[in-house]
Amino acid sequence: MKSNEPIAPGGVIGILGGGQLGRMLSLAAAPLGLRTAVLCPDPNAPAFDVCAHRIVGDYTDVDALDALAAHCEVVTYEFENVPVSAIDRLSTQVPVRPGRRALAITQERFEEKSFLSAAGIPVAPYACIDAEADVSSALKAVGLPAIIKTRRFGYDGKGQRLVRTADEAFAAFRDLRSAPCIAEGFVKFDRELSIIAARTPDGTCATWDISENIHENHVLRRSRVPVPEAIPQAKHAQTLAQTILQALDYVGVIGIELFDTPDGLLVNELAPRVHNSGHWTADACVTGQFEQHVRAISGWALGETTRHSDAIMTNLLGEEVDAWDSLATTSRTKIHLYGKRDRRPGRKMGHITRLLPPANS
Amino acid sequence: MKSNEPIAPGGVIGILGGGQLGRMLSLAAAPLGLRTAVLCPDPNAPAFDVCAHRIVGDYTDVDALDALAAHCEVVTYEFENVPVSAIDRLSTQVPVRPGRRALAITQERFEEKSFLSAAGIPVAPYACIDAEADVSSALKAVGLPAIIKTRRFGYDGKGQRLVRTADEAFAAFRDLRSAPCIAEGFVKFDRELSIIAARTPDGTCATWDISENIHENHVLRRSRVPVPEAIPQAKHAQTLAQTILQALDYVGVIGIELFDTPDGLLVNELAPRVHNSGHWTADACVTGQFEQHVRAISGWALGETTRHSDAIMTNLLGEEVDAWDSLATTSRTKIHLYGKRDRRPGRKMGHITRLLPPANS
Repeated sequence: MKSNEPIAPGGVIGILGGGQLGRMLSLAAAPLGLRTAVLCPDPNAPAFDVCAHRIVGDYTDVDALDALAAHCEVVTYEFENVPVSAIDRLSTQVPVRPGRRALAITQERFEEKSFLSAAGIPVAPYACIDAEADVSSALKAVGLPAIIKTRRFGYDGKGQRLVRTADEAFAAFRDLRSAPCIAEGFVKFDRELSIIAARTPDGTCATWDISENIHENHVLRRSRVPVPEAIPQAKHAQTLAQTILQALDYVGVIGIELFDTPDGLLVNELAPRVHNSGHWTADACVTGQFEQHVRAISGWALGETTRHSDAIMTNLLGEEVDAWDSLATTSRTKIHLYGKRDRRPGRKMGHITRLLPPANS
Repeated sequence: MKSNEPIAPGGVIGILGGGQLGRMLSLAAAPLGLRTAVLCPDPNAPAFDVCAHRIVGDYTDVDALDALAAHCEVVTYEFENVPVSAIDRLSTQVPVRPGRRALAITQERFEEKSFLSAAGIPVAPYACIDAEADVSSALKAVGLPAIIKTRRFGYDGKGQRLVRTADEAFAAFRDLRSAPCIAEGFVKFDRELSIIAARTPDGTCATWDISENIHENHVLRRSRVPVPEAIPQAKHAQTLAQTILQALDYVGVIGIELFDTPDGLLVNELAPRVHNSGHWTADACVTGQFEQHVRAISGWALGETTRHSDAIMTNLLGEEVDAWDSLATTSRTKIHLYGKRDRRPGRKMGHITRLLPPANS
């Protein structure tokens, strides 16, 4: 691909990771006439059911990476724990979008907070814990209660502990195997929101309506739009999103988790990819996040994010997916099952989106 | 598959034919957790980009058919010119839906008209032409002008001639290589409509709103919904569709083309499959025709056909697809490119659906 030209229909997009996000990216690429090649270590990866080229291999396997690059005009990733070394290997052969910097920053919580602070984005107080000796000073900086989080490889509440005392903080750090951590001040918020945003290589941005997100056991349970209680925050969320995208020189779709607090919005976390709290966009908008990500990384113009319906997205966790036959008859409901062979408790097996006529029409 | 049980997520649907309809069926099966196996003689078939199993082979190749059956819980077809022999071979191994009878009837125009007449469905006058000796009596039965059509393998206006005199009728029959034909009376209509309908194995039916269809050079150019001029006809169209589905003991989605005449609706043609004039349903409704066909043949409950937007679907023919980059920025427009390698003049290369807020909201 010449860097300034869009990828024409017939072109191939490489995806690192074959989970549900890679699957839905593949499904969204097809109507644009684009094919996908997926690299994943799991031979039963959900994305393999719907892609043009399957490469079973590890993200550190240079032959697998080179095979992927050979198929593709551009490469993207569907999760942020891809090793940066894979991006480095691929980048010499094919553009990788979003690029190395967005990945490196978002896979390390201290880097992420530091980046956000430097960009003038409000975040909760935070401090590094590299060793037990840092715990007391970190708590002094962020206050109690606090949340101790490993800096890397955390998701869905894994690798984090809520602590109410200094003793609990020491215990939590040891329980997290003394891995490099950060302490974050515990934020009292009215609600959790997120904004999904996209940016093209030439700097054009688009956002969707903000959603409210309900978590259960640290896992997203439900997202809903619109959020009538947060209308004044919507404009601020858009501005934050654009600032973050520009500061990262980002290309693609990003998910930005927000706390809506009495003192204003705080950014909680960035996901350098399509995001669970944006799944509703694919059903309720002219252009959904999966198609938008494909457009952005392929150098196409962004599509309209206009919403035609109100929406409530609900994740199907573990055995909840067994109710597929009754979900199939639930009113105004779009079903999305991920084709995962292995149904573990709490695992994201699918989601449903309930579509309702817009309340303001 | 036990015949009365729905196919559970993880199951595989076989599709005879790998064109755009097979492709869009595959894309619609995935969110239900179902995979597809596609049999097609063309190794570059559009559906091969998005299916789990690819079988390159002819529809008369028994090994290819057996390989397909071995993968699948149910088999369907995406075009009506599949040889009935293929269905016969497959049916001994796996359910084929819609079945042999719907296929046999709809691939032969005289059979189709006879079936419709017997079911009490209004059709244009028609008569058989097996040899030149039949031309005069056929014209006497149907009047002039008339349309002479080959009984088999006609589509998009291929294999048919409009004739205004008996001499032209003789010439047309010879021009069609004296293949078995029918003569149809030329119907003056106000507009061409279609209704897309679905039926489950247990006899439940669903229909979408009727669309108006604009043809150019015998090829569908545009379908639009709603059709305010045809509101009184909608109920009659639904009744006709249900009568046809029941009389065929049909399972799956059917496309029914109608002439809206001053004397009422006439059925012009049946397509035993998802239909070009129903493509808008996938973008404008809670459940689209592709998902509905997958549900019906898999023994699932039908989905809601509720429409959330008004829609205009426009086919992209031949070189029109080259405008993909400007189509990508057209307001409220969903793009569907078929991934066809070979761009021939007039060939269906894709379609777009323009979504508009419902006029009656």
